[in-house]
Amino acid sequence: MTHLTPQSLNQHVLKVEYAVRGEIAIKAEEYRDKLKTPGHGLPFDSVVTANIGNPQQKGLDQNPLTFTRQVAALLEYPPLMDLGKDIFPKDAIARARELYAEIGSLGAYSHSQGVPFIRKNVANFIAERDGHPSNPNHIFLTAGASAGVSLIISMLLSSPKSGVLIPIPQYPLYTATLAQHGGVPIPYYLDEGAGWATLPIDIERSLDKAISEGVEPKALVVINPGNPTGALLDEKTMKDVLHLCERYKLTLMADEVYQDNLHQRDKYPFTSFKRLLREEKSIVPLFSFHSISKGVSGECGRRGGYFECANVSDEILALIYKMVSVGLCPPLSGQIGVDCLVRPPKEGDESYAQWKKETDSIHEALASRTKVMAERLNALPGVSCVDSPGALYLFPRLDLPPAAVEAAHKAGKAPDHFYAVALLDETGICAVPGSGFGQKEGEAHYRLTCLCDGVDEYVGKLERFHLSFMKKYGGL
Amino acid sequence: MTHLTPQSLNQHVLKVEYAVRGEIAIKAEEYRDKLKTPGHGLPFDSVVTANIGNPQQKGLDQNPLTFTRQVAALLEYPPLMDLGKDIFPKDAIARARELYAEIGSLGAYSHSQGVPFIRKNVANFIAERDGHPSNPNHIFLTAGASAGVSLIISMLLSSPKSGVLIPIPQYPLYTATLAQHGGVPIPYYLDEGAGWATLPIDIERSLDKAISEGVEPKALVVINPGNPTGALLDEKTMKDVLHLCERYKLTLMADEVYQDNLHQRDKYPFTSFKRLLREEKSIVPLFSFHSISKGVSGECGRRGGYFECANVSDEILALIYKMVSVGLCPPLSGQIGVDCLVRPPKEGDESYAQWKKETDSIHEALASRTKVMAERLNALPGVSCVDSPGALYLFPRLDLPPAAVEAAHKAGKAPDHFYAVALLDETGICAVPGSGFGQKEGEAHYRLTCLCDGVDEYVGKLERFHLSFMKKYGGL
Repeated sequence: MTHLTPQSLNQHVLKVEYAVRGEIAIKAEEYRDKLKTPGHGLPFDSVVTANIGNPQQKGLDQNPLTFTRQVAALLEYPPLMDLGKDIFPKDAIARARELYAEIGSLGAYSHSQGVPFIRKNVANFIAERDGHPSNPNHIFLTAGASAGVSLIISMLLSSPKSGVLIPIPQYPLYTATLAQHGGVPIPYYLDEGAGWATLPIDIERSLDKAISEGVEPKALVVINPGNPTGALLDEKTMKDVLHLCERYKLTLMADEVYQDNLHQRDKYPFTSFKRLLREEKSIVPLFSFHSISKGVSGECGRRGGYFECANVSDEILALIYKMVSVGLCPPLSGQIGVDCLVRPPKEGDESYAQWKKETDSIHEALASRTKVMAERLNALPGVSCVDSPGALYLFPRLDLPPAAVEAAHKAGKAPDHFYAVALLDETGICAVPGSGFGQKEGEAHYRLTCLCDGVDEYVGKLERFHLSFMKKYGGL
Repeated sequence: MTHLTPQSLNQHVLKVEYAVRGEIAIKAEEYRDKLKTPGHGLPFDSVVTANIGNPQQKGLDQNPLTFTRQVAALLEYPPLMDLGKDIFPKDAIARARELYAEIGSLGAYSHSQGVPFIRKNVANFIAERDGHPSNPNHIFLTAGASAGVSLIISMLLSSPKSGVLIPIPQYPLYTATLAQHGGVPIPYYLDEGAGWATLPIDIERSLDKAISEGVEPKALVVINPGNPTGALLDEKTMKDVLHLCERYKLTLMADEVYQDNLHQRDKYPFTSFKRLLREEKSIVPLFSFHSISKGVSGECGRRGGYFECANVSDEILALIYKMVSVGLCPPLSGQIGVDCLVRPPKEGDESYAQWKKETDSIHEALASRTKVMAERLNALPGVSCVDSPGALYLFPRLDLPPAAVEAAHKAGKAPDHFYAVALLDETGICAVPGSGFGQKEGEAHYRLTCLCDGVDEYVGKLERFHLSFMKKYGGL
């Protein structure tokens, strides 16, 4: 009937895959609706959304940081700066007044690169973090890190042979964006046995193989702390990565959105690629991405973030500006979120004590949940799990009995997909199979967020499900 | 030095042009900064931003609608629903509570297609507008109309031969998006002599010509009311366009973001393509776009809008869902803006009187400014201007003296670009040359927003500039 068919479309679209919100997540939504009907007949009372790092969603309900929301509310409705003097702390009102003087109405398009004043604050934040200067004109505010990553990848791909190195397992934004724009993913494997370490020698092997097959490598993606692995790169590895980028003339894309989600700060600190780039006096072009969706901010719905360009010429910066100007500007509510991320209340400010209490409790809860979950998962037969020092996830490995693998293949599913569907069907827990992130041939994993409260009940369900699954397929 | 050069990039990027925020707009920003320094030496005291439809920007300061901002502030900081009972009207609090119950925290990712409840409200708005039902599952909330347009065009282009019909003059998002994704723009010319009318016979001529040159037309773009022209299509023309899309198997993209900016409602009413599609029982696939950035809402900075799909199969809808899910979700502040756009206060509500007063005054100011500006422009020698019945702009035509055209060519500029640069340099008024929107070979135009207050002073400057320009080049 209609001429608008999948076959008539851009065929790249058909190849895009994004498991985090894919088939299993859609099924979980359907269950959530079904639970609202009396006598729903499902073997669980609630859906546990462990598929996506979305701390403030219903059912998880991590509270937003009060200071951020107060500033945002005051800017949404500026008469509150006077009318609400008895409701809002003085520093929140002062911050809102300062931003209002710079921005004016949140309802106006800003500079396409982001409000200049906020970019200056981001540059100060970076300079303080790294001990090296940062230029506000080299910073682009974005609608979340994803928007920036997608833009830069789309600009770097100059032919269908253009390739981008991505860690496996990876956050599927990278493969999805490459599929969308017709680029070649060049996988390099992280070493699970060494806590999901990045091995420059493996990157080089993947590079050489790709080049021998006619691929033209353009860029290297590093996710640090890792998603889904939570692993952090040490400085030695980072320097090796930089030198490798220099040798192979690669642009480095550093996805650093989890830089503030560190559960073992002393043992596994975060080092930015920007700092090492400057220390090594490297000439590698670097794009580093940050976001308000993660960290203790968790403001996913605002869509805010930024990327910083280093060793990127004015000519290229002008081209990036042109491309973002077509989309007019990033959402102002996200830009406000970025300002609050890089300028939280300071000691002595009226809001400091509350901010400190809120952020400490988020850090502590995440670290303790991650630890408990990893311990209990590791105690299960056929499960091994790297104790993640960063980010929001665990990525346990499943050693499934042959009968389960066979049943999965019969159902036309990857074994970990089969497992994740059964987990959802029986417990209401929605996780993402490892195949959505990539893994070695024949392996099985799944990604689980560590955001859910009530770990005891939640992991208890997981344990009971796993044991019965293993029993059913002769693994016990 | 660095290997990241323009030559190393996706070459489509180099071809993208977006004049609305291009060279002249960048120069205007520089002047604005320079004006802050004492003894700036510029021949004007302020920059008048007439290049972009951005009603709430500094210097224009169209007030946001109070109801929208109150609801948004309450959702940003939910404790205000109690703490602010003496500040906020009851209906704003009730609306915020209703939305909060549906959405939860604004800091959480929503459904990738947009909050289901808000999509239901959009569907009701469309059904009421058109008298034909609308399905919430066929609606995608977006980060402004641009994001939706860009997504759909990128999905429709299946080969470098794929073409999209665009009106000339057009809003340059269309040519920019086609350049970015390597599609072929197929221009069809609007008839300036007939008030920028759309002539289906001209569309057909362009189509046949493109096909004979090996282009494969995929879609037809109609901007109604027009940007930059302000023209409205009548029902007869719209029906002809629909039938033409049927005959040529084209997808129709209806950019209807100015549907509520009507200055002569009785004579030039707005009819949606969706309504005629249903009335004609047409099978043409239609994407229609709306936005919170225009109309009386003017909330550009929130980045909100939606598109509705009609005659689009579930298979295609699933593909669109997959693509938007990679970007996670549209900004929640934009989604809230959409809800307020489609559900303004009703008669009897506490906020209705204020809402009515605010929106009436925006409509009246825009209509009267547009009329006065068109009259005064038409009184100038060498200027003719269609009295725009819709949108936010005028697009006057310049009949420049030969010496001015020669001077422009010597400077390596299109004549209207040359004129617009001189206008900015001498008066601080930032307009966009017609070449940025497209026009017939040898013609000269510029686009001017009708958003500036103080029309008398502003148009006075324009008149004095124009007369001195004409005199300088022997046109008087």
